[in-house]
Amino acid sequence: MINVVKIGGNVIDNQAALKAFLSDFAKLAGQKILVHGGGKEATRLSAKLDIETKMIGGRRVTDRDTLDVVTMVYAGLINKRIVAMLQAEGCNAIGLSGADGNVICAKRRNPEPIDYGFVGDIATDGVKAAFIVNLLNQGITPVFCAINHDGKGNLLNCNADSVASAVAVACAKFAPTSLTFCFEKSGVLTDVNDESTLISHIDLEIYPGLIKSGAVTDGMLPKIDNAFKAIQSGVASVTIKSSSKLLADIGTTITK
Amino acid sequence: MINVVKIGGNVIDNQAALKAFLSDFAKLAGQKILVHGGGKEATRLSAKLDIETKMIGGRRVTDRDTLDVVTMVYAGLINKRIVAMLQAEGCNAIGLSGADGNVICAKRRNPEPIDYGFVGDIATDGVKAAFIVNLLNQGITPVFCAINHDGKGNLLNCNADSVASAVAVACAKFAPTSLTFCFEKSGVLTDVNDESTLISHIDLEIYPGLIKSGAVTDGMLPKIDNAFKAIQSGVASVTIKSSSKLLADIGTTITK
Repeated sequence: MINVVKIGGNVIDNQAALKAFLSDFAKLAGQKILVHGGGKEATRLSAKLDIETKMIGGRRVTDRDTLDVVTMVYAGLINKRIVAMLQAEGCNAIGLSGADGNVICAKRRNPEPIDYGFVGDIATDGVKAAFIVNLLNQGITPVFCAINHDGKGNLLNCNADSVASAVAVACAKFAPTSLTFCFEKSGVLTDVNDESTLISHIDLEIYPGLIKSGAVTDGMLPKIDNAFKAIQSGVASVTIKSSSKLLADIGTTITK
Repeated sequence: MINVVKIGGNVIDNQAALKAFLSDFAKLAGQKILVHGGGKEATRLSAKLDIETKMIGGRRVTDRDTLDVVTMVYAGLINKRIVAMLQAEGCNAIGLSGADGNVICAKRRNPEPIDYGFVGDIATDGVKAAFIVNLLNQGITPVFCAINHDGKGNLLNCNADSVASAVAVACAKFAPTSLTFCFEKSGVLTDVNDESTLISHIDLEIYPGLIKSGAVTDGMLPKIDNAFKAIQSGVASVTIKSSSKLLADIGTTITK
């Protein structure tokens, strides 16, 4: 089983939480892959450099200067810090952008109706899973940032959730693959303020009822829809759980 | 034959020169490795962030903030730009810091007599050549920045010339390996202002005479001394040449 784990800004921005998470991740049995988001460091660096941060619908508009900032922060600072920390935990990690080994090819997003600049979506067949599986079979753990390339010399800023899904779907063609999204809650909660309302399992049979009853809230809908898409593309299961409970059997697992 | 090629700031700081060099490098026959220095980008970024740049004897004193800057610029911006540009030239490059795959382990430099901060020297047996050779045998071209790690979770800023030498010496244990240092001149010149005074070949027999006659100037002495050290450690030959003439048979070749 290959386990693709995605962490976001809430872990990356907190040095102690990151260290604890990576210590757990290093202990995770079997073949594994880490995908990390960006956190607030890029916004902070942009501000210091007087580069305006412009977000539309939660997505960073990436002009040339912003692309340099996210390449420095995501592919440089955060990625190499994580790799060095994993090495210290005895996990033989390798940091990768999509340009490295041509492992993930992306396509610049159509500038109509909104021009996001150097933002990319992963191309169909854009993930070279054979290269990833070859690393895993050597006992090496790939660590992906969400900077990819278009094969024409341009780097593109991508969504880390999408990178994690695309990597899992591509790996699933080679070996059974699961996908884990870590965030600040224990999983899908019917009451977001009450951790005891965790839904531990969702499948296609019970999902419509959960939506109808209002048990699954708006913010969770796209996450779960994407999980089902990954499962329909061959991923065995998708788990949504807390980044502080990676090794615990607590979370929401989504299957067919 | 494995060819380890090192480029410095003079190429990296000039976008047109870098593009031309990488186009040549992509055409270089056989297995190859690129090692790049930093250029002025790190100094510029430090200045914008109000981080003082302190150099002692040509080496950057690397405090915690400066380490973040060089990690962002060398391992992020420059490394990924080069990898994306090489991919566009049809060369399947992979960008690596020493932490990636634990490929280069360094040791923090003794803080006595001068504390350089997070500056490292490559440890004995610090280069995992088997990992590099495995990539080469898959048709992949490693691109090293000079950021390495100590295996305890710390990144360390190293000298790119030293990285290139250490990588070449380690690879030479697996296959015949040559080392090429690219810079702004055509090679070792007896008159630095006259390219026609190029010395095309230096070996241990003629070297003492060149020093005695003053044909080899002070600035070149450490470079040639290091070249002889690499050769004595198993590297087949070391060539010093212009980054604009990578594919031409013009330069100074140093052999036993």
